Amino acid sequence: MLRITSFSELTQHLQKISARKRLVVVNPSDSHTFGAILQAVDAGLVSAQLLGDPDDFDMQLINTHEQLQLIECKDVYEASERAVEMVKNGDGDILMKGLVNTDVLLKAILNKEKGIVPYGQVVTFIAAMEIPSYNKLIFMSDPAVIPAPNLRQRTAMIDYAIAMTRNFGITHPKIALLHGTEKMNPKLNFMDDYKQIMDEVKQGKFGDAIIDGPLDIFLALNPAFGAVKNVESPIHGDADVVIFPGFEAANVFYKTVITFANARVGGILFGTDKPVVMTSRSDSADSKFNSIALACLGFD
Amino acid sequence: MLRITSFSELTQHLQKISARKRLVVVNPSDSHTFGAILQAVDAGLVSAQLLGDPDDFDMQLINTHEQLQLIECKDVYEASERAVEMVKNGDGDILMKGLVNTDVLLKAILNKEKGIVPYGQVVTFIAAMEIPSYNKLIFMSDPAVIPAPNLRQRTAMIDYAIAMTRNFGITHPKIALLHGTEKMNPKLNFMDDYKQIMDEVKQGKFGDAIIDGPLDIFLALNPAFGAVKNVESPIHGDADVVIFPGFEAANVFYKTVITFANARVGGILFGTDKPVVMTSRSDSADSKFNSIALACLGFD
Repeated sequence: MLRITSFSELTQHLQKISARKRLVVVNPSDSHTFGAILQAVDAGLVSAQLLGDPDDFDMQLINTHEQLQLIECKDVYEASERAVEMVKNGDGDILMKGLVNTDVLLKAILNKEKGIVPYGQVVTFIAAMEIPSYNKLIFMSDPAVIPAPNLRQRTAMIDYAIAMTRNFGITHPKIALLHGTEKMNPKLNFMDDYKQIMDEVKQGKFGDAIIDGPLDIFLALNPAFGAVKNVESPIHGDADVVIFPGFEAANVFYKTVITFANARVGGILFGTDKPVVMTSRSDSADSKFNSIALACLGFD
Repeated sequence: MLRITSFSELTQHLQKISARKRLVVVNPSDSHTFGAILQAVDAGLVSAQLLGDPDDFDMQLINTHEQLQLIECKDVYEASERAVEMVKNGDGDILMKGLVNTDVLLKAILNKEKGIVPYGQVVTFIAAMEIPSYNKLIFMSDPAVIPAPNLRQRTAMIDYAIAMTRNFGITHPKIALLHGTEKMNPKLNFMDDYKQIMDEVKQGKFGDAIIDGPLDIFLALNPAFGAVKNVESPIHGDADVVIFPGFEAANVFYKTVITFANARVGGILFGTDKPVVMTSRSDSADSKFNSIALACLGFD
């Protein structure tokens, strides 16, 4: 049975499936993005159409590479709109951000007529993290897109995470709703959401997922420290997914495990018609490659 | 010149000073707290008065140990009140929490007449963290006490952190105001505070401290990743102090570096008349010992 617990297993799995996806990239003129694309092309995961100014690229390399093609665009606005159009029309499977402001690409993605977000759909970012001292991948949301999620957005994050973990062969994902302690605190806005979600968990709304919260980082991800607390939880410091109260805490987690725990990361947008690799300037080439791999696995 | 960059250097420094402080502890009947106290006593840092029920302790050990004394109390309420009273009266230098609910001890500490918090004083928690891959201690606030700090509380955190780092020989502490990005976002409550603080920084209000924000974890603590971002900041990924937007993000940082980065930690309350070691159940004996050491260094 399929069970993917690391990024290298993910790449191996995709190579075994051997279905090259068509990647459409807005201005990958920085070395990290271009390097990640080359790596994904050479690993057999994707072919790539690059939208940008030929002057910004090594055209000799691109022209001699069967799986690479450059589509000339005069600026990042045109490149963003065209890339979204290509993915929307079925001329591409995955949209990827290169050297372009997030706002510019997001505007094209979210455009009511020409964009790729169904009306009313929640768009959020799910990251996967491989931390050497943890026994499997950790999925998390949302360190990037939604500053202060509401109930509908939190529920969408959980639904998306369940879909994503299913593709990794996790049939009963353990999902922790994060907070500084395991105690409900009615003074905090997001506690109402947690309470509502836990009520729905009891009603079986989330199927085979094992959801509990609020839990702190120890109870969610640290079996040794969590045990000291003597809190009854089905998570047992062994979560597959952590849903954070908001952007600030999620962003701190994401960047802290990269900085201090040698984490390998990747992430994609959910809620769009097709997977979107929405990287940031400070992402390494490795993290951009991992994000492409996550997008290749896709979502259902 | 004095410069303390790790917990072991802190202990060595305190042993060199050789001024045993009088520790007053509310119900240290759990093994982590008791172990940490014994270690601090044996290292020559403190003598300890333990307030609790004799039945919960190894009285033979206590009776034969010159620097240990048990004061019988019928419950944690009495122990909390008495411990605060002793410290207030000058019969103790440091107050420490053992196996007692935080609320119970805090109530005694904050009591208007009998407590040890001057009227109107901000009480907050400052932690010190030793992360193997970072070249010095990181001080942070506030992972424990204030859920959503206001401007006055944030300013107090900075003032306290400056006082604390001075005791570690840091004359120009680099202090980062944390956020998910380096961009001001007027939609977020705490941004007004950051803006105000940065205005005061320009006016020289914080003396020799080097303060910048908003900055993300990379720009604050990760020189390699921070450099990619091309952001001008005097912090250069080399912060001594990180001030978090709120409790959730701070708590995630604190518990994540313990879980995934082998961090050694310690922390004390600031704003009280005397240092208070306010540990939690899941703190290790090492972290409780470090907290005692921090309290011995004290604050001015």
